[in-house]
Amino acid sequence: MARVVFALEASDGAARVGRLSTPHGPVETPVFMPVGTQATVKALAPDELRAIGASFVLANTYHLFLRPGPDLIAQLGGLHRFMAWDGPILTDSGGFQVISLADLRKIDESGVTFKSHVDGTTLKLSPESVMEVEAKLGADVAMAFDTPPRWGTDPTEWKASTARTHRWAERCLRAHARADQVLFGICQGGFDAAARADSARTVGSLGFPGHAVGGLSVGEPKDVLFPMLAASLGALPCDRPRYVMGLGAPEDLVAAVGLGADMFDCVLPTRLGRNGAFFTPEGRRNIDNARFRAEAAPLDHTCDCYCCRTFSTAYLHHLVRVEEILGLRLLSLHNVRFLVRLMERARAAVRAGAYRAFADDFLGRYAPDSASTREARRALRL
Amino acid sequence: MARVVFALEASDGAARVGRLSTPHGPVETPVFMPVGTQATVKALAPDELRAIGASFVLANTYHLFLRPGPDLIAQLGGLHRFMAWDGPILTDSGGFQVISLADLRKIDESGVTFKSHVDGTTLKLSPESVMEVEAKLGADVAMAFDTPPRWGTDPTEWKASTARTHRWAERCLRAHARADQVLFGICQGGFDAAARADSARTVGSLGFPGHAVGGLSVGEPKDVLFPMLAASLGALPCDRPRYVMGLGAPEDLVAAVGLGADMFDCVLPTRLGRNGAFFTPEGRRNIDNARFRAEAAPLDHTCDCYCCRTFSTAYLHHLVRVEEILGLRLLSLHNVRFLVRLMERARAAVRAGAYRAFADDFLGRYAPDSASTREARRALRL
Repeated sequence: MARVVFALEASDGAARVGRLSTPHGPVETPVFMPVGTQATVKALAPDELRAIGASFVLANTYHLFLRPGPDLIAQLGGLHRFMAWDGPILTDSGGFQVISLADLRKIDESGVTFKSHVDGTTLKLSPESVMEVEAKLGADVAMAFDTPPRWGTDPTEWKASTARTHRWAERCLRAHARADQVLFGICQGGFDAAARADSARTVGSLGFPGHAVGGLSVGEPKDVLFPMLAASLGALPCDRPRYVMGLGAPEDLVAAVGLGADMFDCVLPTRLGRNGAFFTPEGRRNIDNARFRAEAAPLDHTCDCYCCRTFSTAYLHHLVRVEEILGLRLLSLHNVRFLVRLMERARAAVRAGAYRAFADDFLGRYAPDSASTREARRALRL
Repeated sequence: MARVVFALEASDGAARVGRLSTPHGPVETPVFMPVGTQATVKALAPDELRAIGASFVLANTYHLFLRPGPDLIAQLGGLHRFMAWDGPILTDSGGFQVISLADLRKIDESGVTFKSHVDGTTLKLSPESVMEVEAKLGADVAMAFDTPPRWGTDPTEWKASTARTHRWAERCLRAHARADQVLFGICQGGFDAAARADSARTVGSLGFPGHAVGGLSVGEPKDVLFPMLAASLGALPCDRPRYVMGLGAPEDLVAAVGLGADMFDCVLPTRLGRNGAFFTPEGRRNIDNARFRAEAAPLDHTCDCYCCRTFSTAYLHHLVRVEEILGLRLLSLHNVRFLVRLMERARAAVRAGAYRAFADDFLGRYAPDSASTREARRALRL
């Protein structure tokens, strides 16, 4: 049975270009994966995702576990057929959602007991049951079940949850059985660089074919995020893909690629789109702004998406003002294309041995005075 | 400058097939026009409309007059460019919306004074100003400004508003000036068959290149609708297109084509889609029904739309249950395709001289026991 295989193709400093082969086709890395929380990338159809060059889609195990349930999805032929996405899919493990969305969770060594945020039912997930759920969903890449500590908790909590994540990683490896699916490990470490490096080395030694950095982008400031990210990435095996969970701001992606990251996912582009915001090479803009009322130019004249090829900014302004669904669709489409294209350009820059110049150029235009971009620039010097 | 020209190509009883030539391409009739109230057919993009064979789109003068305003649309190159629809467009005149949506309207001989339903501003529209607004919007077909009486008002009101509609029709004809746009007249007559026939003859004698039947499908029962429709259609010139405003239920379209109607518009297919309902050859269904939870078949196995070619009914059920925008998009797409295809089949039946058999067959399958279908069958025997 075909499995996920990773091959490094080029590198430039810590930044690198690779190729993931999966049962559902190849993926060039670095890659941005749009998030299909409930087996749909919000507001977008699979044919649109394909048209804008999205190659790899994420779906959330926690949400699909609750509705419509893994047995129904398996009965209907698995997640690819269910959501009509014939490219590669990655399912997260639900670890993050159980902590952030569910009520009244209780964590013990066996697993997490929680109340569904949908109907209040008491449910339990363990490393073994999550492997079973992810096998039923049938993504190309499954993620191990972890317990990320929340930002704002103390180091005792970081240590306990990191140690638990390590023990659960081994249980996930033992429980994972589906031959056409690979399992990626997740490292934690809280907000301490040494603990991050230690967790990355520990998880990196267990034999996973790929690894994720978890527990970041959870509310901590960017001057905490990037040093933690650098510590994690620097200690993960460099012959395996390195996936940074939950990162989606353009400036963050550019910095993280510079630190050696290969894969990203985030709800940001679609969430911003539904809130009327869009990416441009000069920074994030809000379509509701009165200066867009009569703007005949597209949202982003450098963009090749259907929205930018077809409609004026004034039309988008009108659609969002009068609360038309098409407005949210088109902004979401553009935003995802923006990140997909950003990764295309990052790959080209790495292959040309010019990643640093590309990153400096991008960050020098993209909201150059914002604190977030400033930290991204500093991160590239780490 | 190219103008709208109508040519009859075939007929079968009162049912007929024609060809409208417009500055933005030809339209085969009978045709269903999806409604783009605010310069967008709700939840759908122009490339999707094209893909499902929609040839002619309607937009609402009243809504566009309020937001974003006709001057802005003209400045941005007109409605076709604004909404990126390069096929034919028809704009209604706002007569119906002024009566049904606006508050505190005052009708006198000069026009209608009303408060915007958006922000309460007091505004006025007259036959002359509506012609100016429609000229700025630049649709291929503009509609005359009428005052349809509401269902539930008394015959004095029908008579007064019908007489006013006739006087305003002449004023619209005098005021209409745009050379690449044609103006259709609207007949009224309330809910009295003789008055309907009289209004149709009166409006039909004024020299309009096409005519609409207005003031129906406004809440009256179907056993009132069809006799009124028959009286209007029977008295309109048969060498010009006959457009029935506001009709969109499949059974109503089949009956109305049988009575000699050529054009239809209605928000029904997209409104139903946003409410989780969809058309099938056996009648209207609600996707929320528990029996669709695990249904692997498409919504309608006879349909060729993207939704039916790609997704299971179970997936649509899931999307709507978890309130995902894609669900509303796909149901809207299917419902519009259903009506577009119904008109394709109606045209083929007329050309084959088999319209009555087609109509009987369709109505015999489509919710055959419903009161609405029963009245549609009776109408075909009028």
